[in-house]
Amino acid sequence: MKHYRMIAALLLLTASLSADVTPAPAGEREERANIRDLLIAQAEAWNRGDIDGFMEGYWKSDQTTFSGSSGVSRGWQALLERYRRNYPDRAAMGRLTFSDLEITMLSRGAALVLGRWQLETATGHPGGVFSVVLRKLPQGWRIIHDHTSAVEKPPANRVS
Amino acid sequence: MKHYRMIAALLLLTASLSADVTPAPAGEREERANIRDLLIAQAEAWNRGDIDGFMEGYWKSDQTTFSGSSGVSRGWQALLERYRRNYPDRAAMGRLTFSDLEITMLSRGAALVLGRWQLETATGHPGGVFSVVLRKLPQGWRIIHDHTSAVEKPPANRVS
Repeated sequence: MKHYRMIAALLLLTASLSADVTPAPAGEREERANIRDLLIAQAEAWNRGDIDGFMEGYWKSDQTTFSGSSGVSRGWQALLERYRRNYPDRAAMGRLTFSDLEITMLSRGAALVLGRWQLETATGHPGGVFSVVLRKLPQGWRIIHDHTSAVEKPPANRVS
Repeated sequence: MKHYRMIAALLLLTASLSADVTPAPAGEREERANIRDLLIAQAEAWNRGDIDGFMEGYWKSDQTTFSGSSGVSRGWQALLERYRRNYPDRAAMGRLTFSDLEITMLSRGAALVLGRWQLETATGHPGGVFSVVLRKLPQGWRIIHDHTSAVEKPPANRVS
């Protein structure tokens, strides 16, 4: 009888490992919420002038990559330094908003997020779109790749 | 004794399902080669003036997304039409090269590829970087999201 119990336990284990490959909807909803929270926390950190807090959203690795109109740059530390140089104070940082977040789960441990970004500073209102790829690491979801583009706004309607 | 054999068989099954989550290096090498081949086939199709062949690399879905300096656009069919409109003949299409491909496997069924693109036409030499996310579908690997940026080339060195 003991053996049947062991077999039943192993069958359950087998089934649970099998289920691991395709996440349960409830687990997926939670992961999507965690990913959304990470991006919202990034914008909130930015808006209190906290670049270090903003950078918490990224994988702290030399392999983290950033693509855009300057090409590909590499490494968490390099990105932090670039942000500090380009945004020396809160006035330069302005107010950042992320919107239209579209989360696609690629597996239990990876996701793609599309979204829009908008910055409001005293000197301008740049904005555009981003695509970020995240991985679930022991410390939580982190951005491993960020591709950001500025989008030229169409000219405002004028009364002719 | 029979039960021990069943337990051994179930343990093996458990181990193999467990291994499914982290691919064997040999399988991963093959997937990387398949992904590389897909992108090379895209450039080859482009360079023989075959936009339909080029488009084979993308997931044929309304959910396929393309981000860049125009924002986010959506749908395989819409992209095909945009390419046909913007590149009406082989002269307009010019010669496309992909280089510096960097493939990151995100799971058994998803991958991120960074790379550079360069177009040589009679009228210009635009180039830049792209980030594509691919999924392994029943028909093979397909691009489900493409974020492409043009990169301004630094001015050529001049003799002062």
